[in-house]
Amino acid sequence: MVTENIQTPLIIVNFKTYLVATGEKAVKLAKEAERVSVETKVSIGVAPQFADIAAVAEAVNIPIFAQHIDPVQPGSHTGHVLAESVKEAGAVGTLINHSERQLKLSDIDRVIKKTRESGLLSVVCANNPSISAAVATLKPDIIAVEPPELIGTGISVSKAKPEVVTDTVRLVREVNPKVTILCGAGITSGEDVAAALRLGTRGVLVASGIVKAKDPYDVLCEFAEATTKA
Amino acid sequence: MVTENIQTPLIIVNFKTYLVATGEKAVKLAKEAERVSVETKVSIGVAPQFADIAAVAEAVNIPIFAQHIDPVQPGSHTGHVLAESVKEAGAVGTLINHSERQLKLSDIDRVIKKTRESGLLSVVCANNPSISAAVATLKPDIIAVEPPELIGTGISVSKAKPEVVTDTVRLVREVNPKVTILCGAGITSGEDVAAALRLGTRGVLVASGIVKAKDPYDVLCEFAEATTKA
Amino acid sequence: MVTENIQTPLIIVNFKTYLVATGEKAVKLAKEAERVSVETKVSIGVAPQFADIAAVAEAVNIPIFAQHIDPVQPGSHTGHVLAESVKEAGAVGTLINHSERQLKLSDIDRVIKKTRESGLLSVVCANNPSISAAVATLKPDIIAVEPPELIGTGISVSKAKPEVVTDTVRLVREVNPKVTILCGAGITSGEDVAAALRLGTRGVLVASGIVKAKDPYDVLCEFAEATTKA
Amino acid sequence: MVTENIQTPLIIVNFKTYLVATGEKAVKLAKEAERVSVETKVSIGVAPQFADIAAVAEAVNIPIFAQHIDPVQPGSHTGHVLAESVKEAGAVGTLINHSERQLKLSDIDRVIKKTRESGLLSVVCANNPSISAAVATLKPDIIAVEPPELIGTGISVSKAKPEVVTDTVRLVREVNPKVTILCGAGITSGEDVAAALRLGTRGVLVASGIVKAKDPYDVLCEFAEATTKA
Repeated sequence: MVTENIQTPLIIVNFKTYLVATGEKAVKLAKEAERVSVETKVSIGVAPQFADIAAVAEAVNIPIFAQHIDPVQPGSHTGHVLAESVKEAGAVGTLINHSERQLKLSDIDRVIKKTRESGLLSVVCANNPSISAAVATLKPDIIAVEPPELIGTGISVSKAKPEVVTDTVRLVREVNPKVTILCGAGITSGEDVAAALRLGTRGVLVASGIVKAKDPYDVLCEFAEATTKA
Repeated sequence: MVTENIQTPLIIVNFKTYLVATGEKAVKLAKEAERVSVETKVSIGVAPQFADIAAVAEAVNIPIFAQHIDPVQPGSHTGHVLAESVKEAGAVGTLINHSERQLKLSDIDRVIKKTRESGLLSVVCANNPSISAAVATLKPDIIAVEPPELIGTGISVSKAKPEVVTDTVRLVREVNPKVTILCGAGITSGEDVAAALRLGTRGVLVASGIVKAKDPYDVLCEFAEATTKA
Repeated sequence: MVTENIQTPLIIVNFKTYLVATGEKAVKLAKEAERVSVETKVSIGVAPQFADIAAVAEAVNIPIFAQHIDPVQPGSHTGHVLAESVKEAGAVGTLINHSERQLKLSDIDRVIKKTRESGLLSVVCANNPSISAAVATLKPDIIAVEPPELIGTGISVSKAKPEVVTDTVRLVREVNPKVTILCGAGITSGEDVAAALRLGTRGVLVASGIVKAKDPYDVLCEFAEATTKA
Repeated sequence: MVTENIQTPLIIVNFKTYLVATGEKAVKLAKEAERVSVETKVSIGVAPQFADIAAVAEAVNIPIFAQHIDPVQPGSHTGHVLAESVKEAGAVGTLINHSERQLKLSDIDRVIKKTRESGLLSVVCANNPSISAAVATLKPDIIAVEPPELIGTGISVSKAKPEVVTDTVRLVREVNPKVTILCGAGITSGEDVAAALRLGTRGVLVASGIVKAKDPYDVLCEFAEATTKA
């Protein structure tokens, strides 16, 4: 199983389409993530844009995730994102169904199966506890619960809506005892990360909290240290 | 204007999500396209997958197109394709509204405007003459008319449905005297290319005819020579 | 709970957008369904097009389902289908996520919640056993498993792919002991219906098998009688 | 041509999915529109929800529009809106590509062709002048330009952004001398309507300005009188 290669606690940094995390700046940010990971021995992954995966993969030796893949097989699918393509570029997994790139249920099912066939890790995002449970029945490697209304606010799910996290853990465990659970949305401090772990998750999915930080290295260090203390 | 940099006749090879045009094989195919372009002095562009743009751009010195970009500005758009990202990776333009990746009309408008701001060439695909005319009013750099029912068939639009091409040229010219017109779908031989030019286009958009050819170099040579004879 | 009003075994006839089940013909077909239901005392529901719900509801006294509703609240949603609207027109429930009208996972969640608030029955369609289980965690009233590749073929899921039905029943029951399970796709004979019940479902979702039958009344009688014998 | 049956100036009232314009209330509002039309001899159309078309058509004798139709032929299209269905229910036309229900360009083309075959009036909405011109090349009966940012604001396009209206008229006329042009967004007073006509349109598409008015009859009278004075 692919997840055996991924150590938890796990921090995944989603670069989204931020200009400060595009192109050369994506490589620079990934290097800072790698430096924190090496120094703290905490597992940190990065999810750059499709066109940046190859350069990031060349530059660092931490897990790289695509931000999305399409439910397509090789062939006539102009403009789509092929699992085989992001894998050859260096991704070890992919986000799926991020709240900014949601999929039909049958496509989530197809994409999870596709990641399994391709040897990619599946990180499926879910808006709330009931959707997390639905996703859990499809047996992805990782679920990340993220209430969309908190994304980018700096108000962390783990502190402002702890019941979202605990309900997710409870409902997911009823149908899937193994899947790794992360949470995200509004995570900006080590305390947010520690709270996420205390509530039963194994890490966080974070974007603006790191990407738009004045000093991403510093904040990532704080995050990583919080996981080891928790 | 960006199109001043692109010489016509023009052949654009769309790599789609074919495995034989993914990763290292994308680079190899792009090199063959470059070799034909250098030898024949005919303008040849390639449209690899997003994750392959950077490696292809490093390897060759011919125009590279993304297969699609999204109508988004930098920011919170996980899993989307940002104009700025494909440009920094090395693309000089992008396909838009390919029949396998169609857009809402207002998004076509937004993406064309976005390419203009970003200094990217816009190559908008259209299924038929009336859609081509609608697109022409939005003033893209290039229009490629491709009847979807012929795509991948080996039955060329320029020979099997010449009226699609001539109607497109006529209707487009009524509303836009300048835009470069290409045609595509089923193009597999030099004769198909020559017919396309005789009907009033300035080149072709081709995919399987080259990508799945036994020897892509040979077929591209045939295409390129057909444009110089025409 | 709304489902208390619906007796099983249950046959739901989906009128799709067949011309022979549009307008006056929708009313006529619904009357035949009602006649069979009255004569056989078997529960039969119909799912006409949106514009036909009111006329059908006026003409018959059997359960009427919308074919789809949108995940919207009253307000500025031009061209969308509001739960409150189909309910006032006479629907008692709605199909959700039919393979010809699939939804994002978060929208399935929202629509199911919306039906609960509106007092409508939710009949969620699913392509396969794993998707059925995912849907079951969202606690709809009814799940209908329909392998899309058999829809409209006349090759019945219950006879050609019995394992799809039994796997669905098994996986759904692991996460939801109560939800009513139907199956569909290719159902054309009483024997197909009997097989569906023997495999553990409580009825069928059928479209062309009835709508396009030479004599829908006769075939519906056969279906209804098969449920009472099973 | 269908439009010969529609007199201009024309006011179309879009009921959207407002509860105050659903079901019985849709019929009541349509009757008020009819009363104003009869009293002022100004052409007024209404666009109720799909499930209300038949009841509205039975109650009034003014033009009724669907809010949307899908680009489908009769057949296996569960949950879609068939042109033939809304026509049989009593619609004489349909809105297409409303900013709240936008379509792919090729689907706009298909739906316009479908309305022509079905004898329905096509009223295509467009967000801005350039999109209006693109739509105009597809030869619909009516174009309604509506800047989405003004919809529902009470700030009228005709007074706040007159250049949107005049640019639309100018660009549309360059490619289509005949199509009827309406404008919409923020229209709440007779003065807004008069301004719309002075700027070169033949009427307005209005929703909240009438539907949410304290007394829709009064405001519609004001609108209708403004068209006759203009």
